[in-house]
Amino acid sequence: MYAQMPRSVDGLKAAGEWHILKELLPAFEGKAVLDLGCGFGWHCRYAVEQGASTVTGIDLSEKMLEQAQKLTNSDVITYLQMPIEDINFAEEQFDIVVSSLAFHYVEAFDVVCKKIFNALKKGGSFIFPVEHPIFTSRAEQDWHYDENGQPMHRAVDDYHLEGLRQTLFLAEDVVKYHRTASTYVNTLIEAGFTMKTMKESYPSEEMRETMKDELRRPMFLLLAVEK
Amino acid sequence: MYAQMPRSVDGLKAAGEWHILKELLPAFEGKAVLDLGCGFGWHCRYAVEQGASTVTGIDLSEKMLEQAQKLTNSDVITYLQMPIEDINFAEEQFDIVVSSLAFHYVEAFDVVCKKIFNALKKGGSFIFPVEHPIFTSRAEQDWHYDENGQPMHRAVDDYHLEGLRQTLFLAEDVVKYHRTASTYVNTLIEAGFTMKTMKESYPSEEMRETMKDELRRPMFLLLAVEK
Repeated sequence: MYAQMPRSVDGLKAAGEWHILKELLPAFEGKAVLDLGCGFGWHCRYAVEQGASTVTGIDLSEKMLEQAQKLTNSDVITYLQMPIEDINFAEEQFDIVVSSLAFHYVEAFDVVCKKIFNALKKGGSFIFPVEHPIFTSRAEQDWHYDENGQPMHRAVDDYHLEGLRQTLFLAEDVVKYHRTASTYVNTLIEAGFTMKTMKESYPSEEMRETMKDELRRPMFLLLAVEK
Repeated sequence: MYAQMPRSVDGLKAAGEWHILKELLPAFEGKAVLDLGCGFGWHCRYAVEQGASTVTGIDLSEKMLEQAQKLTNSDVITYLQMPIEDINFAEEQFDIVVSSLAFHYVEAFDVVCKKIFNALKKGGSFIFPVEHPIFTSRAEQDWHYDENGQPMHRAVDDYHLEGLRQTLFLAEDVVKYHRTASTYVNTLIEAGFTMKTMKESYPSEEMRETMKDELRRPMFLLLAVEK
């Protein structure tokens, strides 16, 4: 199903949060990069374009990785098929860890954070967007609409009830894990990271008219931390 | 109007976020403490009970400070009447700065953060609850109710439109300033602070039944940072 999304077909520029994520990324020149939940490999290839020396892309989906390989013409990118939870890299192997919209599918975020901290060199960066807790709190994950079908406001409920959310995405069942913004932040700090920047997605200047509802609620939470 | 609230009459224990705030406070023994927006002085007196060597309480309201003075029997607490924005203390004068539910009335949070950073000793703590951005985003600052008057969900809107909110509180007009969670966090980091903990309020164990709607949305955002 992801294959039909604009972000999957058109890559980074089609992703509504890319203009924010891009500003949070450190310089890739000469760096060893890990991408958790790499999908079609857009961020892996971007890292190489920016001068990364090696890139490791992890994804659960064999089909996505096949497509990623087809789209990739670089011998410094290695794609590995496995669940994010199962990563087990040597200590201080990477300079930069990125993960785009993957952690809200991961139940054991605390375990993954510790593994990432371990795999990063001192001073290394970890940057990721996830679906915002305001977005994921209700299973419906939707606006509240008026009688004319216009979004009246964003509906938030069950904010503190963390855990499983069974929801629909492009007419298919999807299992996500809702956690609060404070759980994201505190889990990172408890793993040893230093908070650098927190962002909540908003439309880019050029999309402000066509995506103006995106000023009404944040769809994505972006966090940048350092070891 | 604040004088009628349970928290004003019964003090800290009547405040729904006290059980969380208390856990974020460092040891007060022998410390120089500043309380911004001290109201009736409950947190000032708590600091003295816990062994603080000096406490300075700042509030805009002359009436509140008169009442604070009446409730206070300690010569280490000094109450000063001024807007929080106007504080101008010597460098590295305080060990701990607290502020309870005051900053959502302050427009220039960035300016105040820099002044607090300056007034704190190295290693000093700054801890504060504010009304949560999920709570302050809409001017109505209310639930969305069903036809039977039951809260259906919390309504969020205009999240990214920071600034003035004119709202009603106990039937009087109140001016607040909405800002996003990320603005709170990034303003602190840009002022030089290190993030220690972020919390979002939830009911205490003993209040879980009577305040169960408080699990549905966070009313307060609590931040603890260090110089």
